[in-house]
Amino acid sequence: MATTRRPRGILIAFEGIDGSGKSTQAALVAAHLADTRARHILVREPGTTPVAEAVRRILLERGKHAPGPEAEMFLYLAARADLYRRVILPALARGEFVLSDRCFWSTVAYQGRGLGLGVSKARALSLIATCGREPDLVVLLDLAPEEAARRRRGKADRIEARGNRYLAEVRAGFLALARRARGRAMVVNAHASPDMISLKILARIHALLRRRRRAAPRRGRG
Amino acid sequence: MATTRRPRGILIAFEGIDGSGKSTQAALVAAHLADTRARHILVREPGTTPVAEAVRRILLERGKHAPGPEAEMFLYLAARADLYRRVILPALARGEFVLSDRCFWSTVAYQGRGLGLGVSKARALSLIATCGREPDLVVLLDLAPEEAARRRRGKADRIEARGNRYLAEVRAGFLALARRARGRAMVVNAHASPDMISLKILARIHALLRRRRRAAPRRGRG
Repeated sequence: MATTRRPRGILIAFEGIDGSGKSTQAALVAAHLADTRARHILVREPGTTPVAEAVRRILLERGKHAPGPEAEMFLYLAARADLYRRVILPALARGEFVLSDRCFWSTVAYQGRGLGLGVSKARALSLIATCGREPDLVVLLDLAPEEAARRRRGKADRIEARGNRYLAEVRAGFLALARRARGRAMVVNAHASPDMISLKILARIHALLRRRRRAAPRRGRG
Repeated sequence: MATTRRPRGILIAFEGIDGSGKSTQAALVAAHLADTRARHILVREPGTTPVAEAVRRILLERGKHAPGPEAEMFLYLAARADLYRRVILPALARGEFVLSDRCFWSTVAYQGRGLGLGVSKARALSLIATCGREPDLVVLLDLAPEEAARRRRGKADRIEARGNRYLAEVRAGFLALARRARGRAMVVNAHASPDMISLKILARIHALLRRRRRAAPRRGRG
């Protein structure tokens, strides 16, 4: 019977503006975990659950009916809350790896800082949505908005379509979060090749696992 | 040029469990305001704006994909935030009456108390969604859940389908809010006839208007 006080699984989030390579890197880590037969799931924010995917459509579609700033923030929080309750927290409780394409950092950077709704408010509300759970590691793929736009080749959802000035603010928000998170974040220059980036990330994940094993030796069965 | 510090319009909300006659009473007050040529709008929560109506569909449809408790609360908050930003606050700033079928009391009663997410948390989050604006008057149509179910004749959305025990808790939550709101709330026995109830509500609204006129005499133009 498991009697651990904190979730045993490991939550790793990938952050950065669109075009920075988050999804690619999350998939590469997932492939590595599959090779080593480690149980894992891959999720994305906003989305993954049916409710959160419905919310995602409201948020990202470019049309005339865009939500106002506070509504936008609450929609992201709703999608996150559903995903954590139904998917992420149960997987962590089973001891699995969870790889998340975005996490609450996005709400802090895009809405809290980018839209001016307040960084500390966005963080506090996000922790209600995650039942207090923060990632064990956030991989921030740092990229200049101009380069990200070039990679997207003009395809931008409603949020990214706010332009480079907005995205520069978001990028600064991400870097501030990384400075504050210290040991629980790594900043990667996203201009490097995907393979090179992936090697760095895997090295960091292995270091995290080694530290965990030292801190909490595996329990026996009796 | 208007230089008032607070919104000049009047926000009146109608609350109670489904079947208590909220929509009927809101429509009767709207008809009265139309007769007196007072500028007014009639809105409903969740809903009214395109974004909020999309959120309403996620919330109320009875299917297998229901949002979790925190997600449910954030979805109501998102719909409210969009409605206040886009419709209610601008109408109040123009000096109009706003009649609202439900308000943040529902989040406090159904999610904060009914789902156990916390009354004070639900209130604090709601005030972010309304930019701090509370109704000038809440009309609580008080009805026993058994009678409400009889009136609905078996038709219940996902929330009301939680049953009489849940709705009894919600009703108690509403009554607690009314006690706390004092001068800004009236409790009406919803078993009475709609006409009789409407007369009481209109009398209260006229008293509110008289009190306002005394408190803030109409400004001249110079």
